[in-house]
Amino acid sequence: MTRERLYLFDTTLRDGQQTQGVHFSMPEKIQITHALDALGVDYIEGGWPGANPTDSDFFEARPQTRATFTAFGMTKRSGRSAANDEVLAGVLNAGTPAVCLVGKSHDFHVTTALGITLPENLENIAASIAHLVAMGREALFDAEHFFDGYKANPTYALQCLHAARTAGARWIVLCDTNGGTLPAEVGRITADVIASGIPGDRLGIHCHDDTGNAVANSLAAVLAGARQIQGTLNGLGERCGNANLTTLIPTLLLKQPFASQFDTGITPAALASLLKTSRMLDDILNRVPLRSAPYVGASAFAHKAGLHASAILKDPTTYEHIDPALVGNARLIPMSNQAGQSNLRARLAAAGIEVAPNDPRLSGILDTIKLREDEGYAYDGAQASFELLARRALDLCPAFFEVKRYRVTVERRKNKYNDMVTLSEAVVVVKIGGEKVMSVSDSMDEDGADRGPVNALAKALGKDLGPYQSCIDDMKLVDFKVRITQGGTEAVTRVIIDSEDGQGRRWSTVGVSPNIVDASFEALLDAIQWKLIRDHVTPAQ
Amino acid sequence: MTRERLYLFDTTLRDGQQTQGVHFSMPEKIQITHALDALGVDYIEGGWPGANPTDSDFFEARPQTRATFTAFGMTKRSGRSAANDEVLAGVLNAGTPAVCLVGKSHDFHVTTALGITLPENLENIAASIAHLVAMGREALFDAEHFFDGYKANPTYALQCLHAARTAGARWIVLCDTNGGTLPAEVGRITADVIASGIPGDRLGIHCHDDTGNAVANSLAAVLAGARQIQGTLNGLGERCGNANLTTLIPTLLLKQPFASQFDTGITPAALASLLKTSRMLDDILNRVPLRSAPYVGASAFAHKAGLHASAILKDPTTYEHIDPALVGNARLIPMSNQAGQSNLRARLAAAGIEVAPNDPRLSGILDTIKLREDEGYAYDGAQASFELLARRALDLCPAFFEVKRYRVTVERRKNKYNDMVTLSEAVVVVKIGGEKVMSVSDSMDEDGADRGPVNALAKALGKDLGPYQSCIDDMKLVDFKVRITQGGTEAVTRVIIDSEDGQGRRWSTVGVSPNIVDASFEALLDAIQWKLIRDHVTPAQ
Repeated sequence: MTRERLYLFDTTLRDGQQTQGVHFSMPEKIQITHALDALGVDYIEGGWPGANPTDSDFFEARPQTRATFTAFGMTKRSGRSAANDEVLAGVLNAGTPAVCLVGKSHDFHVTTALGITLPENLENIAASIAHLVAMGREALFDAEHFFDGYKANPTYALQCLHAARTAGARWIVLCDTNGGTLPAEVGRITADVIASGIPGDRLGIHCHDDTGNAVANSLAAVLAGARQIQGTLNGLGERCGNANLTTLIPTLLLKQPFASQFDTGITPAALASLLKTSRMLDDILNRVPLRSAPYVGASAFAHKAGLHASAILKDPTTYEHIDPALVGNARLIPMSNQAGQSNLRARLAAAGIEVAPNDPRLSGILDTIKLREDEGYAYDGAQASFELLARRALDLCPAFFEVKRYRVTVERRKNKYNDMVTLSEAVVVVKIGGEKVMSVSDSMDEDGADRGPVNALAKALGKDLGPYQSCIDDMKLVDFKVRITQGGTEAVTRVIIDSEDGQGRRWSTVGVSPNIVDASFEALLDAIQWKLIRDHVTPAQ
Repeated sequence: MTRERLYLFDTTLRDGQQTQGVHFSMPEKIQITHALDALGVDYIEGGWPGANPTDSDFFEARPQTRATFTAFGMTKRSGRSAANDEVLAGVLNAGTPAVCLVGKSHDFHVTTALGITLPENLENIAASIAHLVAMGREALFDAEHFFDGYKANPTYALQCLHAARTAGARWIVLCDTNGGTLPAEVGRITADVIASGIPGDRLGIHCHDDTGNAVANSLAAVLAGARQIQGTLNGLGERCGNANLTTLIPTLLLKQPFASQFDTGITPAALASLLKTSRMLDDILNRVPLRSAPYVGASAFAHKAGLHASAILKDPTTYEHIDPALVGNARLIPMSNQAGQSNLRARLAAAGIEVAPNDPRLSGILDTIKLREDEGYAYDGAQASFELLARRALDLCPAFFEVKRYRVTVERRKNKYNDMVTLSEAVVVVKIGGEKVMSVSDSMDEDGADRGPVNALAKALGKDLGPYQSCIDDMKLVDFKVRITQGGTEAVTRVIIDSEDGQGRRWSTVGVSPNIVDASFEALLDAIQWKLIRDHVTPAQ
């Protein structure tokens, strides 16, 4: 079979940003652009330049990409020429090689939402696309509500597509804007469009997940002949989200008939980084990654049923539809078995701790990890705390100092100028080799502004650690993440702290407690202890 | 067209419990059973009696149901008769009207996982099903790995199905156990099975979501002729979960061709309780409901894009594929800096505040929102705080009370048993109509455990609000989310608090500060103020 090219169009930065609660900052947009480009999508839609200031700034600052960078906009309005439509001009001013314009293809929307005549809308589509082409841009036409429009008035819906096609659009994108169309219908209507004279290799599909079928709808359109899929990382997007590229990409590359029929821009190496790319987006959004996500979820290859787990040991293909490593994921089987222990030894060796294969303390460490994870700890993002946990179990963790007590106060009241101000203050008492050391700090930054109780506590703790002070003086807290999570049956706070030192080392520690101050303090203590061990500091007697 | 009966088989209590981290207690199983029965599913699979003590106890205590209560088990093992297999006996002893037995249909699994011959497996299936029928039970046969088995050895896979059918199985269920099969293939193979002589009205489909297609696969099987769907509430289940009945049910009842072709046991009234049923399961699991869930997600009918929101105002069908009320959901027009004035007016109108289209204060409110979002606020997920912001700008926000000051202390020290314990205490001073009220609280829960400074502050604030106390007594804090974000050039903490009252109202408020305690306090104050306004409380003089 001749292999055909299938194109992937990412709209995480545009339609993805329509998700409730999602607003990307400029550095985040740049980070996502780099990640998408490394992944190998063909088009990156960056936003709607001119529609809001952040989008416009981003288009000015956008990085160079291998992918075709695309600006989004809408077809020109009635009563003016394409060249005189200032909204369209704003889009073109971004100077991207490709421009995707959304336009109506549902007669009801033309008359109800736009309030113009059906021929006027056709003219707006044709003139807008022709204008893009005249300006030397690759033109894409997003046919909004196409499937609903086709069901209501197939002749008019097709006329809209052909208007764009005749005007020179490289791609005609069939959009299921409301997300209500089911796969069989998407397949049938896509075939009708091709039969009407628009070739499949000019046809894209843009689906939403309102019936849980965005992935299946995209696949149905490809099976019917469409050759471009629009979607987002992690299925981000308005309402129930867009077609999830993180799910579609492995299916297209690994599953039949797609794997044999199509080439995409995604290499096997990029596919193996899919989990990392997915987690990067969750990190930016400070979202807990969905455990049950296809391919990249933490549970996607977790085998809980006893029957499954024992069959998996005989042959992984018995209960796995793909090799998890292909997407950068890993099989998860009960910690108590042999596979769990070899994984643990590898992680310990990475921290410079060698343990013999059958050391009975290995299963003890695994049990402790399991117990702590049930309490809400997460060691994947806190390698330093994991190392300390193992060192404690192996008696490789010196007692540098002991915290006797601490107290933090947050007070909000009027200052002498009659303004309400907040003040935080922390007192920490530690015992170092028989000596009691008491430190106090507030949480003011250089501008005299309060930075909160955790900051006060960190400053008090780092103020005087006696003989260790020279070692921790170059430490600084560079990131602080907070998540409310489940610990047993209660909600607890998980704090992950990233620290850095003068040698450029960066390490992460975790603390968990119903009390955010306590959780932060635990992570701070781990951070200091790890640094003292790494610098081979001798504990005070 | 003659309407046909389509049967729904729920396995939340059996396959759903294979989800990582999920284990239902006995009262929870009973609660779920009642909810499923009220919803109107045809079969409720309760677990595997005999396989573990909780399942056995539950079958003894199970409530009476209109749905056919079903026990799960596996076909008898080789080398003994069905009557002498104690595992099968354990299943039958539960005394359920229906029994569903899983058995192999993939030759590779028969020889590799079971280590028996292909004819032996056929004999095990036939003898087990015949035994169920002889004992007067309705028999279901779950053909494990059927699709993979059919692709590997279609003759043998079909022989397994026919063995069960000939022995008297009421239902033959095609299981995509590894979840790797795609919709077109499910449709084609299901049609092949029917062509082999097993009528569609004896055929069930059981899918997993490993490629994100569990819903589409179930629909494809029904289109091919299958008449029973197995799934779980909220798509609970091992790895990526089972086919999501919460998604499938509205599609089957509201979408074509299904709505015209099939009758199910679900009434329109039960459909309208779907969101409540979905939330009940999340409550039991203490999970934050997935905002983007089809039909029942909080974002499923949220319209963020300005263009969409203004069209929605003209006619809701422009951007909604169904009326949200049909599934117990509601439209949401969230605020964000992408929103236009039409968004804003719609949202205000929903809160009972009518503002004329060109009121100059509208742009003032939008400016304030933009400014606050730059500071780190997010109003998409905090509608109540948005409403208060607008009310303040419109002079519609009474001054109920004034906070003069507060102080929170977190202290960690040894208790009288020499254990390190943490204590939090809060003092709040408010002025209500000229009266000063001072309240103090710690943060102990019923078990005497510290729940942290925010909890102490919430309790102190809610302890005595004088004339307002009766209004806020039924308020409780039901969720608390923390995010470190960017506010101007500094990292700040954003806290979102969800509150609920005795009338079942739920509202969300936001606070932002470098100090997490302060941010929480701000969100708490908004929560109380919103409730006082909604209950039409008169401010004290």
